[in-house]
This record gives sequence, structure tokens and C-alpha cells, in this order.
Amino acid sequence: MLKRIQTQTAHNVLCYPVAATIFPTLFPRAQFDRAWGLQSVYNELYCILAADERWIYDTIKDLFPVDTFAVALWEIHQRVKETGGYAQDISAGIFRSDYMLQGDGVEMGSDKSTDPGSELGLKQVEFNTISCAGGCHANKVVDMHRHLARTGAYSSLVSENLVNLSAVPRNTNIDSLATSLAEAHKIYGPPKSKTAETAVLFIVQPDNFNVADERPIEYALWDKNVPAYRLEWGTDVLQYTSLSDTKQLLFHPPWRASQKPMEISVVYWRAGHEPHEYDETGKELRLRLEQSRAIKCPSLLAHILTFKKVQQALTVPGVLEKFLAPEKVAAIRETFVPMYPLDDSEAGQHARSLAMDPELAEDYILKPSLEGGGHNIFGADLPGFLSSVPQSSWSAYVLMERIPSPLVGNVLKSPQGIESSAVISELGVFGACLWRQTDHGCEILQNATAGWSLKTKYTDIDEMSVVKGYGCFDTPLLC
Amino acid sequence: MLKRIQTQTAHNVLCYPVAATIFPTLFPRAQFDRAWGLQSVYNELYCILAADERWIYDTIKDLFPVDTFAVALWEIHQRVKETGGYAQDISAGIFRSDYMLQGDGVEMGSDKSTDPGSELGLKQVEFNTISCAGGCHANKVVDMHRHLARTGAYSSLVSENLVNLSAVPRNTNIDSLATSLAEAHKIYGPPKSKTAETAVLFIVQPDNFNVADERPIEYALWDKNVPAYRLEWGTDVLQYTSLSDTKQLLFHPPWRASQKPMEISVVYWRAGHEPHEYDETGKELRLRLEQSRAIKCPSLLAHILTFKKVQQALTVPGVLEKFLAPEKVAAIRETFVPMYPLDDSEAGQHARSLAMDPELAEDYILKPSLEGGGHNIFGADLPGFLSSVPQSSWSAYVLMERIPSPLVGNVLKSPQGIESSAVISELGVFGACLWRQTDHGCEILQNATAGWSLKTKYTDIDEMSVVKGYGCFDTPLLC
Repeated sequence: MLKRIQTQTAHNVLCYPVAATIFPTLFPRAQFDRAWGLQSVYNELYCILAADERWIYDTIKDLFPVDTFAVALWEIHQRVKETGGYAQDISAGIFRSDYMLQGDGVEMGSDKSTDPGSELGLKQVEFNTISCAGGCHANKVVDMHRHLARTGAYSSLVSENLVNLSAVPRNTNIDSLATSLAEAHKIYGPPKSKTAETAVLFIVQPDNFNVADERPIEYALWDKNVPAYRLEWGTDVLQYTSLSDTKQLLFHPPWRASQKPMEISVVYWRAGHEPHEYDETGKELRLRLEQSRAIKCPSLLAHILTFKKVQQALTVPGVLEKFLAPEKVAAIRETFVPMYPLDDSEAGQHARSLAMDPELAEDYILKPSLEGGGHNIFGADLPGFLSSVPQSSWSAYVLMERIPSPLVGNVLKSPQGIESSAVISELGVFGACLWRQTDHGCEILQNATAGWSLKTKYTDIDEMSVVKGYGCFDTPLLC
Repeated sequence: MLKRIQTQTAHNVLCYPVAATIFPTLFPRAQFDRAWGLQSVYNELYCILAADERWIYDTIKDLFPVDTFAVALWEIHQRVKETGGYAQDISAGIFRSDYMLQGDGVEMGSDKSTDPGSELGLKQVEFNTISCAGGCHANKVVDMHRHLARTGAYSSLVSENLVNLSAVPRNTNIDSLATSLAEAHKIYGPPKSKTAETAVLFIVQPDNFNVADERPIEYALWDKNVPAYRLEWGTDVLQYTSLSDTKQLLFHPPWRASQKPMEISVVYWRAGHEPHEYDETGKELRLRLEQSRAIKCPSLLAHILTFKKVQQALTVPGVLEKFLAPEKVAAIRETFVPMYPLDDSEAGQHARSLAMDPELAEDYILKPSLEGGGHNIFGADLPGFLSSVPQSSWSAYVLMERIPSPLVGNVLKSPQGIESSAVISELGVFGACLWRQTDHGCEILQNATAGWSLKTKYTDIDEMSVVKGYGCFDTPLLC
């Protein structure tokens, strides 16, 4: 369910079903298992990177002249260091690595291809480190597909595979994401201040029509006896939180002003990932929470790793080798597609020539180094777009080769309508980590693969954002 | 959630939250426990009555000239008997007994009254034997109140009682109603025909905006490995079901026409309780399903027991004694309020004089002998209404003394608004039964108390129907 925008009052709100495919979409089991298996390597990599301030600085410093969001976040980091440093050496992460299948012209499910997975590659679209959404919707839509499958609703319409529920994997995102936050809560330990209880605090966006993707995690935490509260990004955070002398993050719920505050164990960011949020209030609240002893999910440096610039930097030969063992390097490098900076370097010059060539540009996507997606420029639009932007700011973008995906058929159902079409899917795998920053780098305390989401869109739509109306939540029909 | 009427398409529907109280409503624990305890006695009574065709006939025969619904149902009963009789001697029931507190002027929660329960009575409003609704909504709204209570949202606003979750009872209607249907499914046993599996069949009303009160039971059945399907009351039932030579009810799902049909173990009526449903198609489908070996929840004779005429007949001195042991008679008779027929009998003459007196009528409600409520006439409206109706049809009604309820305060939230007010609550207790018709009467196979619902409305509103916009689902704050 999504809330219909501008229908909410104190006593009512209109809702509608989130877009979903009618059928599960064919997806090779080998690639699904592979993406699942890779997550622990990606988790390890990003934990190590998050503990490497120097590398992060070197990677993003060129963005500072052209990307105010990078500047805002880095300044908060500097301010924390100037005001006594980080009070909490443990960080949490709920990550999501997104993949598409690579294999142009492969027609999955056709008689010719008995093992379609073997011809296909698995390529990473992006790696998200903050506010990773869709977990709850995915859980519910998979429940729906599995229900339809067990009732036999598909049995006369599609491949016999569907009758076999083992081809339609379970999804337990809600429970596992809550479990990962509960682990962070547990590792925080008993309250250090004189308050009676600790609690997890969700920082959420105001007026969020997508609250149904957050609330189930909160309820699941309570069901695990972990208190969880929420504050909207903005003045509420400044008003209802404070730092104790020893930097405990105290939460003063407005509805129990007369009682002792709670001590926040974990700050779970479901806001703060968009540049517009960093006005003075936004900067101040982020600073306060980062200064605190609460475990942040994610910490500021881990947040910065979500920048596309970081993803591109990891594709540079020799970089991965600094952080991972050779077999792990090989495994994840196989998921990379060519990415280029758009700066003055040699690689950047090459990328510029690709992006400005109307024909060559067809195979590329221009991505700003922002979290959240939705600001990408595709193929033929590149030369025109770049011409409209001062060359001095081109380095705020990275150029990524498009992933030519195999065609599959499905029927997509959204508030806009219901239509049968060729479709393309994107598989996201959720990772859940806990790590400790040490003098020598990073000690990983937890490295879990927590869940997955599958999103599917019409092939002729470039964007993938279900809640914005592009694409549907989906379930793989493992083949 | 309720569906907004006329917004449904193949691909979308708008929904809105079902009306709920902001706070749980004060309710004496003693009376809550009493209503719970009484259910097994009511279950027993109604099982015995359902097996007593003669008593039912004697009780409702006077309705035949004035109530076409009673005629329609009785004719179906006769037709079943004429065509070989009932093929299934086991019946199921999901009943709901509704109560109000009696105690005019008692102000619950006031300092004067330390044990308000002791001053109050518990009086039965009605007993429902078919399509008993509200179970799922009640479950969800209680979950909400318990969530708000555990988060401390109430702690600074109301009595400390609320901080104590034990004062806000759990509600597991969805699971327990599904369990009761699963028990009926189990007792039906393996398929008797050459089909591979048995299943429960929900018969539901078309275009039901209240489907959220049915679907969770269906999903819970599947989770218990009991297949459950649904057909809409109407031609679909005739088209997709058939009787085998030995009266097994076969279900031919349209989506697997080429496969063997399923054998229906249990027919769960969530339709067929309204007179307008009995057109030729409605009569024909009811007849077919009643003729079948499927266990009906409820069977036709148990359905007829939902008539207000039956409720009134049970208040006649000496009647209960025919069916129950003396201590059970006393326990449930204490929940009766005076009820009268409106016929030519001595009691009826007395009732007519009460109902036609503008002053005396204030204390009475006129109820047609229909299921579902919503057609009652209240107090001062009685003389005018009766004058508008031919006297020959008065016997289709019963006259019931109004139950003067104690005043409690709460805040009601509905799509119409949010308002603080004096309120009145109605407690429903769900019973789940299985019984066998024997040559000598009734053998009770299962007698369970399955759940409860609390509904609360403004004191100045007469009707109680949450889904129609009168009143809210609620949770008792046991005191």
C-alpha cells in the first residue's frame, strides 16, 4: 500500500496498492544464488571502505567543487572530528546491491535455451548504503505471488514451474531487517546514562507516502522486545533529542515529557539521503546524531560510500586488490560494467568522447553522484544534456555502460493500468553489517545477507522506481 | 482497511482505514470475562436448537405470512428434505453474541466507583449465527491499540492502567476463526469422490468493500495447509460447482478447467444472509450447497436461528428449560432484556400498547426478524412507523427493551472526522461449534469460544455498524 499524496488528514488517508507484476518473472536460479552469495563479499568490502577515511577522501575530493551534497556531508564529518571525534566506534549498515542480468537478445524461457542462466551475466547497477527502501513492499508482494501460486491461480496459464512453490523463493525481509537492527541494539548494550531503557530511533522523511515500507520493520522490532520510535527529519529531531555530557543520545518523547528520556541505541536513517534535506536544520540534526554514542545505520562515512563516484572508483584496476583477497576481487569484479569519471583524467577524456558522440552514447548512462537514483541521463540524451551543463561541473557525473538485458514477458499492474509487455528486472540483495573502527582499520562484527527485492519495468522505460510509478515489485521465478 | 466504493478497477482500488477509537474504552473486566464464559453455554444452546427442526418451525411459522425471507429459507429446507434429505449430518457454526453494559448513569472510571463492574449488568443485544463479521478488523484494531500502549503513546494522557498491557487484552480472531474452519475441514475427512484434494469454499458477496474482513481468514487457512477458495454469491456458484452422484460438492475453478475438480469440505457463508440475495439464482445455489455433503458454516436451520423472533422466543418463560440445565438457564437468562412479539397473543397485545404510546415507546426498539441489523426503529419513531405499516405485518417485528448503558468518554476517529464524546460500546463474543444431528437430537463435537470484538459509537447514534460509518472498532480497557 502507498498513501495517496495530499489525502492525509488527522482522521483519514486514502491508500492504493503498490505496483506489482501479475506473475513472477523468469530469473535464472544460478544468478539469483550468485547475487545472494556475493553479498557477504560486498558487505566486507564496504565495511572496510567505511573505516578508511583517507581512501574515501581521496575518492570524493574532486566532487567538492561541483557537488554541494558531498561538501555538506564532509563538513559534518569534519565538525564531528573537531568536536571531540566520534563517540561510537561501532557502525551498522543495511546495504542493498542492485543487479541486472546481462545478455542481449537472450530469450529466457524459450525452448532453445534449456539453461538460460549459463549465457547470462550478472552486472551491478549500483550499491546503496543508506535508506535502502523496498524491503517491506518486496516481502508483501512476494507473499502475494506465493499465495497465488499455492492457490493454483497460475497453473493453467504459465509454465508448470509455478505450481512448484520452490521456484518462487520466500522473502522474509521484514523480519530480517528488524533482526539486523535488533542485533545493533543488542551490541550497544545497557543504557550508559541514567535512563531506564534504550531504544532504536528511526529518522524518517516528513509526509512520507511510502510509510508502509518502514512501519512493518518498526512493529517487528517491538515484537522482538526492542522499543522503536520515529522522528521526522527536521526541527522535531532538534526538539526531542539531546546529547548527554558523555554523548549519549537522549530521546524525549513529547507524549511523556514528565518522565525520564530514553537512550537511543541505534539511529536508523530513512531520511537524510537527499541533498535538499541539508538546510541548516538538517545539518545541525545530522551533526548532533553523528556526535552521539548511538550506533548509526549507517555512519556518515558509510553513507558517503553510496556515491556513484565510489562505485566508479572501485572499477579502476588495482583498487579492489587493496581491500580484498584475490578470489573475492575476481568474484565481484565480474559484476562490474565499465564506468568512467567525467573529469580531466585520461579515462575522463575518453568518457567525454563517448558521451558526446550521439551514436556511442546510446550504450551509456550518465549518473550524478547522488543517492536515490532518478536523476540519470540515458543514451541519446547525453550529448544534449552535457552541452547544457558547464563543463566545469561534468566531474559531478560518472559514465556507466548500459546493461543490455534479456527480454522476458510479464503483465505489469500499477495504478496507471495493466499491460502485457517485454520487461526487464533488477534484483536487489540486502546486506546487514556491524563493524568496529579500530586503530588499524576495521573489525567486522556481523556480516549477514538479509534479503532481496526484485523490481521489474517495461523495457522502454529507463528509470526504475516503483513508488514513483516506474516499474513493479516482483518475485523471481527461478529457472 | 476498507475499499472505497466505486474506485475499484482491474488494476487499482482506493482504500481507507476502518474507523477506530483513539483510546481503548473502559470496560469492566468482570463483565468481559463473564461474556467470554457464557459463550460456551450459548454455543450449546444454539447447537441444540439447530438440531430441533420442530421447535424452529413452531417458532417462526407465524412469520411466513409476513416475512418472505423466512419463507424462502424454509422452502429451501423443505426442498432439501424432498430431494433425498441432508447428506451431511455435521454442521459448523461461527456465532457472535453481542452485549451491552446495562447501568444508566453509572460513570465508569470516576473516583466514586472503585469497582464499577459490580453495579453493571451485561445484556444481550442479539445473537448472530451467519456471516458474523468484524473479526479481522477487531484483530487489527486491537493490535493497533496494543502497539500504541506498548510505545507509551497513552502514558501521559490517560489512566496508568493503559501502561499495563495486561489491561488491553490480546485479540487473535483471525487465527482462531481460521482454526475453527480448519477443524471443520479436518472432521470432513479425506475426499469421498475421485478428486485429489478437499478445500474450504467461502461464498462471498460481490463487490464487497469489506473484503479485508474476509481475506485474512482465507490466508490463515492456507498457512495451516488448508486450501481455501472463494466464489461470489450468484451465477458463479452455479457455474463453478456441481454435485456428484453421491452429493459431494465439487468445485471447478475456472483457472484449472482441464484438471480434476476439488471436493469442498466446508462451505463458509459470508453471503446469503440478506433477503435481496434470494432471487432465483440465489435460491438455486443455496439449495445445491445445502443438498451437498459439504459441512455448512452454518447449516440452513442454524442460519434461521439468527432471526430476532428466535431470540424473543427464548425469553418466554419455560423455553430455555427445555434445552439447558438449570444453572446454565439462569446464567444466560440474566443477559436477557424483555422482548415481546408484536402479534395477536396476549404478550403481543401488551407490546403493541407499549410501542404505540409515544412516551413508553422511548424505552423500546422495534426489530425486524432479519439478520444483519440496520433496519431497527428506535424509541420515539415507533408509533409513527407502526402506523405507516399494515397491522397485518406487525408480527414480522419484535419489540425489545432498550439497554441503558453507562457513559464513558473516548475519542472516535472515522473517515468523517475525529471527535471526543460520550460513547457506548457493544461487545461481541465469537463462538465456534461443530455438532452432529442424530436421531435423538444433537451431539456437540466442538464448543469453543473463539474471539471477541468491541464496537463503540457516539451515544446519540442509534445504529451500530462500523463499516457503514456508525461507530468504531475498539479494545476494552479492562478495569
